[in-house]
Amino acid sequence: MSVLIVGSTALDSIKTPGGENPRLLGGSASHAAVAASFFSPVKLVGVVGEDFPRRYLQLYQRHGIDLAGLQIRPGKTFHWSGEYEANMNRRRTLLTELGVFETFTPVLPRPHQATPFVLLANIAPALQLHVLNQMARPRFVAADTMDLWLNIALPDLLKLLKRLDAFVLNDTEAQQLTKQDNLLAALGAIHRLGPKYVIIKQGSHGSILSGPRGRFLCPAYPLRKVVDPTGAGDSFVGAMMGFLAAAKGPIEDNIRRAVLYGSVVASFCCEGFGLQRTTRIKRKDIDQRLAELKRLSRF
Amino acid sequence: MSVLIVGSTALDSIKTPGGENPRLLGGSASHAAVAASFFSPVKLVGVVGEDFPRRYLQLYQRHGIDLAGLQIRPGKTFHWSGEYEANMNRRRTLLTELGVFETFTPVLPRPHQATPFVLLANIAPALQLHVLNQMARPRFVAADTMDLWLNIALPDLLKLLKRLDAFVLNDTEAQQLTKQDNLLAALGAIHRLGPKYVIIKQGSHGSILSGPRGRFLCPAYPLRKVVDPTGAGDSFVGAMMGFLAAAKGPIEDNIRRAVLYGSVVASFCCEGFGLQRTTRIKRKDIDQRLAELKRLSRF
Repeated sequence: MSVLIVGSTALDSIKTPGGENPRLLGGSASHAAVAASFFSPVKLVGVVGEDFPRRYLQLYQRHGIDLAGLQIRPGKTFHWSGEYEANMNRRRTLLTELGVFETFTPVLPRPHQATPFVLLANIAPALQLHVLNQMARPRFVAADTMDLWLNIALPDLLKLLKRLDAFVLNDTEAQQLTKQDNLLAALGAIHRLGPKYVIIKQGSHGSILSGPRGRFLCPAYPLRKVVDPTGAGDSFVGAMMGFLAAAKGPIEDNIRRAVLYGSVVASFCCEGFGLQRTTRIKRKDIDQRLAELKRLSRF
Repeated sequence: MSVLIVGSTALDSIKTPGGENPRLLGGSASHAAVAASFFSPVKLVGVVGEDFPRRYLQLYQRHGIDLAGLQIRPGKTFHWSGEYEANMNRRRTLLTELGVFETFTPVLPRPHQATPFVLLANIAPALQLHVLNQMARPRFVAADTMDLWLNIALPDLLKLLKRLDAFVLNDTEAQQLTKQDNLLAALGAIHRLGPKYVIIKQGSHGSILSGPRGRFLCPAYPLRKVVDPTGAGDSFVGAMMGFLAAAKGPIEDNIRRAVLYGSVVASFCCEGFGLQRTTRIKRKDIDQRLAELKRLSRF
């Protein structure tokens, strides 16, 4: 089955102690879509400006990503610029130019409205809701978010949470949302806000999934070198949804493995600037690393 | 087989947002010895003052801990007082009274010198070396440390490292010792300093073991409530060594499981002040939690 992914499609200028890379392909939907594409067909919903490089459209196409829902509007593509500190754990935004994103209203082509799997990647919760309202009867809906929306759009986010099957967020966001330091307490509090499945990401420390069949501690694949963690969380949730859409049987039977695939694809994402590493891997590289992660965790 | 454990034996006064507990039984050797005692016979080497409460000697004895190597000297027992912040991740020392510990020279009773498993729990590396020099031909020697020794006794520590089978330290100490942010790079650098097995602890994020059979990502057991993390690291290494001493077959076959037991006993330690929780569990509680950790990590 296929996955519809809505989110930001952007140009990222990223500075790390290891180098500087201007105008990379970025945005939550770009990372999530490429990650999902290793597993199942993807329909991308987003907006770019007329300055959006043709080579990035070609990149999406090489990954078989359906671009019928990608609007190309007069104006500039959303441009984000950020800088990472030496240990890659903290980043600061240098510049945010919304461009055509400022007036973005996602409109779903009719065939998109029946897509069974929906990933509302990180954008304003109002836009996530707007997309969800256009869907017929999706089988499984997941959303990601970021601290910004907790700060400026919490009522919308709370409205969204009631309509999700799965909600993915990182540990500091979970803490901010629930006022709970304890991970298990935070998971419980988020379930009470709606979602059946909650996944809290902890960066290089892995993630924890909570659902009807209990909890799952998902390890992160240990990396020799983190080049650029931008998009790792988007890759995580993209691969997770791509795997779920492709897998046979009930969600409960597949979601642990889906989270593991998320963890593995996120690890590849961190090994290059932007999507440079992720776009150079094949499904067999992902499966190999998953097998290695299994060996690393076996007891 | 039995484990000889040398380290500090102290009275800890611990303040957390949850409460204040004066003069608890503490010290690296106390925590490690109780943790190891669930698995194998333990010989404790340490020093206390005449003020050391008789009930704490009885506590050691209830755990079958051999006290022939515990000196009782005129003067006061080592007293540490500390305070934890709300999220339990940072603590500050309020007071350190060395007492009889200031002039402590561990002297091993003759039968102790042939103990096959030796745990040099956290004390000055010079004292760890002094104990090691008194041992006949131990089968397996492990040591723990703390940031203080990296700051003030690095040459001794480096001397010690060459003589260890296993070295256990936490992530910030590993970073300080190796100047490497990356965990895998730090593991490699520490192996080059001597030990065949290196275990880096990451608190509530689990630990990573590196040895001749590769690496092992050991999860931490997720807790509903952390009451007091003091001694968790000591419990970890104590249980690990206790399990190894009791297990049949080569170390390589057992060390993953030993690290898991360390993780589980450390989780119990965090659930009470000082040793209050650890001393109320039985081996079956440990095995139950290990089985649960297995279920939480299975894929």
